[in-house]
Amino acid sequence: MSTPLSPLFTDLYQLTMLAGYLRWGLHEQEATFDLYFRRSPFGGSYAVWAGLESALDYLTQLRFEDEHLAYLRNLQLFDEAFLAYLQSWRFSGEVIAFPEGSVVFPNEPLLTVRAPLGEAQLVETALLNLLNFQTLIATKAARAFLSASGSPHGGSVVEFGARRAQGPNGALLAARAAFIGGATGTSNVEAGQRFGIPVVGTHAHAWVEAFPSEIAAFRAYADAFPDDSTLLIDTFDTLKSGLPNAITVAHELAGRGHALRGVRLDSGDLAYLSRRAREMLDGAGLENVKIVASNDLDEFVIDSVIREGGRIDVYGVGTRLATGGGEGGGALGGVYKLVQLGSTPKMKLTADRAKSTVPGRKRVWRARDEAGTALLDVVSLEGERPQKGQLVTDPANPLNRTRLPERCTLESARRVVLEAGKRTEPASPLSELQAYAASELRRLPEGTTRLLNPHVYRVALSEGLQSLRARMIAELEADAPGA
Amino acid sequence: MSTPLSPLFTDLYQLTMLAGYLRWGLHEQEATFDLYFRRSPFGGSYAVWAGLESALDYLTQLRFEDEHLAYLRNLQLFDEAFLAYLQSWRFSGEVIAFPEGSVVFPNEPLLTVRAPLGEAQLVETALLNLLNFQTLIATKAARAFLSASGSPHGGSVVEFGARRAQGPNGALLAARAAFIGGATGTSNVEAGQRFGIPVVGTHAHAWVEAFPSEIAAFRAYADAFPDDSTLLIDTFDTLKSGLPNAITVAHELAGRGHALRGVRLDSGDLAYLSRRAREMLDGAGLENVKIVASNDLDEFVIDSVIREGGRIDVYGVGTRLATGGGEGGGALGGVYKLVQLGSTPKMKLTADRAKSTVPGRKRVWRARDEAGTALLDVVSLEGERPQKGQLVTDPANPLNRTRLPERCTLESARRVVLEAGKRTEPASPLSELQAYAASELRRLPEGTTRLLNPHVYRVALSEGLQSLRARMIAELEADAPGA
Repeated sequence: MSTPLSPLFTDLYQLTMLAGYLRWGLHEQEATFDLYFRRSPFGGSYAVWAGLESALDYLTQLRFEDEHLAYLRNLQLFDEAFLAYLQSWRFSGEVIAFPEGSVVFPNEPLLTVRAPLGEAQLVETALLNLLNFQTLIATKAARAFLSASGSPHGGSVVEFGARRAQGPNGALLAARAAFIGGATGTSNVEAGQRFGIPVVGTHAHAWVEAFPSEIAAFRAYADAFPDDSTLLIDTFDTLKSGLPNAITVAHELAGRGHALRGVRLDSGDLAYLSRRAREMLDGAGLENVKIVASNDLDEFVIDSVIREGGRIDVYGVGTRLATGGGEGGGALGGVYKLVQLGSTPKMKLTADRAKSTVPGRKRVWRARDEAGTALLDVVSLEGERPQKGQLVTDPANPLNRTRLPERCTLESARRVVLEAGKRTEPASPLSELQAYAASELRRLPEGTTRLLNPHVYRVALSEGLQSLRARMIAELEADAPGA
Repeated sequence: MSTPLSPLFTDLYQLTMLAGYLRWGLHEQEATFDLYFRRSPFGGSYAVWAGLESALDYLTQLRFEDEHLAYLRNLQLFDEAFLAYLQSWRFSGEVIAFPEGSVVFPNEPLLTVRAPLGEAQLVETALLNLLNFQTLIATKAARAFLSASGSPHGGSVVEFGARRAQGPNGALLAARAAFIGGATGTSNVEAGQRFGIPVVGTHAHAWVEAFPSEIAAFRAYADAFPDDSTLLIDTFDTLKSGLPNAITVAHELAGRGHALRGVRLDSGDLAYLSRRAREMLDGAGLENVKIVASNDLDEFVIDSVIREGGRIDVYGVGTRLATGGGEGGGALGGVYKLVQLGSTPKMKLTADRAKSTVPGRKRVWRARDEAGTALLDVVSLEGERPQKGQLVTDPANPLNRTRLPERCTLESARRVVLEAGKRTEPASPLSELQAYAASELRRLPEGTTRLLNPHVYRVALSEGLQSLRARMIAELEADAPGA
């Protein structure tokens, strides 16, 4: 993003806690926080990790300027010592994270911040905001992309949601995340400018209404954009009017050495209309004219259109992609939890023990078979290396244990992306993140990306981590009131 | 908003259409577009109209700078004549709208743009984005506010959703819209700075874990903020540990001439815990200590807590308020449709006639009884004044007709907010918009704001508008292919 986020983009309690830590001299204690989610969105079993670049930009650019301090002073909550501390506040910590575009799962730490408590605490709100939202949208895009591309007559997905997105910036970040998840373009011109995403578009019904007839409107558009016209064919009647008129204009364009790019369906039965449109276009020698469709699409609608033999080349997905709307969507419930302070692992017990945090500093390993297919992820203590054959444990239920296969490779799944507050490597082009996500999606066990009742990919705790957690639960329960 | 939106924050097709209009000399034709929605969000029957100020800022500030033109030039879609036109592009039109904070209904024009076609077309995407999202969130806030305030032991609502909102800007605009809808504060400090919304907060579990014991953590926080402390009491056990410790600290504060502000519940059975907490606090002479609650709240949970005798003073509503998540939420489907070009009314017929647009330039009237209660809204032709006793027609189904009551006053519901591109009045303070929304919510027919199966408030077309529409439908059907 071109403009840095405001340091005031945080919850008030981050600042009051920070002032309190400073007052009690705790702000420089080294703290470790893990960011993770507990449930995959959209009823799926995975997520596509996105937003990391935005998060790193935020962490490396965060500064308190005079206007921010002046506002905080006016709140009459903070003393001058605290405001002076903020003036020199910089993020100086370490961040370890999955590479952006990774396929990730519930209950594994996706990003770990290790920094003085006063720094690690302040950044919680913005990190969660940036990563929750973009991961949600990249996941939605991946689901649509997999639905659209999974057949001989598959198509591509483009993001059309700016008008229904949650604020202008929500629309921009949605376009970015959707591209990582597999969308090949966006209608949002600013997203094109900022992120280099290909911009795409057709025309609206208003264009047709501005001319005396549909064919006059089509001719006028094709004349203005002889090599870039996609004509919206449902203003009057898709098959009886729009398509014959588009075919006429396509032939006229061809006669002048140009080619109609496509037609767009925006209402009605898309499976049926696209089959008929394909037949009519092919019958007119227009095999290269693409069929674009829009109208409340998502991964489920795309899947159903394809199952019914629909012949859509480009799916324009709007509202549900830009907002992650629909069943189990709208927000990813990522959290950011303290797991270690100095050398002491920390954990928060909850009444529902399955939601208790996992203490300590950790590593995440991805086990793969010989073909490179991911088998399961293991979360271990920082200094521990899980051994093949070791029993590993479901973090949500210790009854579920599994043995790490004898034949697998264990790769370290995360890397240090920020060291002493500085980036360890330059930002990758967005197209590389998209390619990486696509390749990781292909290396999942069969059924993991299925829309309904997917295979549940396993995330497990190593022996060392499981023992630490069990011991701490026992200690906390012994100390608990009423125990 | 402090930074103007980019002129590139638009769908590509707005720019290609605009280039086409320019090429064909149609860009200066006067066009009228209506913005409206077809279905109220969240299964309700109304919406609270918000985002107008953001929309007016956008319209009055929109300029193409060199960087924008350079990007567009690089797309190799546009000629220099078009880029020169954009360079001098200004919005010079008229905007008529409901005042921000109004209670509004499906199928009535909420905002009308009358401007040269080239101007009115370009702004569609941003207007829809700003108004759809803020109206969605203000409506969600109003629903939570009405649930929370509707009982002797009612409470207030504060917005806590920054970490789950859709992007940083989504969070800011959500805080603004939530305030209009009735939230009394936000945890988002930047929203406080930008919009003057009161900022509120407590502390997190991490604070408690950073100290040797819960009581030490409470003492440290209370010492740092002796008059502004709300203590989170569920880290170990709400009733057995958190609350007794908070009571101890409250007494210690009182001994030093200060007062504990509140305690926060964040898990468990909020109705039960809040009743018990109230009893224990009152029993300790701490009647003024407030009970704050958070944890996946929305209007339905608040309603159920209150029905079960819960004693919560402040509801911190996060994800579902900041994103409008939940049933029927996530996005408001507002649309922006061409209704007149020059002096010719325009309409788009759809296969489902109920979704056909309503042509022509219009006025919106709100009929009220003697007590000021709104009875129904009537949409008329611009020059028409509906008469009492007149038969008015449901825009979605002409079988539903009703007679305008003999005893009612008809007030013009919208006003001109932009004239020749300039604001007709200064922006109102946000607190006035909030007060206006609250007063309008009180002036609705009984049952209109009910959560389940609400009374459906009627929006009807006047005789003149209904005749125009019926005539145009007949004409378009006669012209239609295959008719």
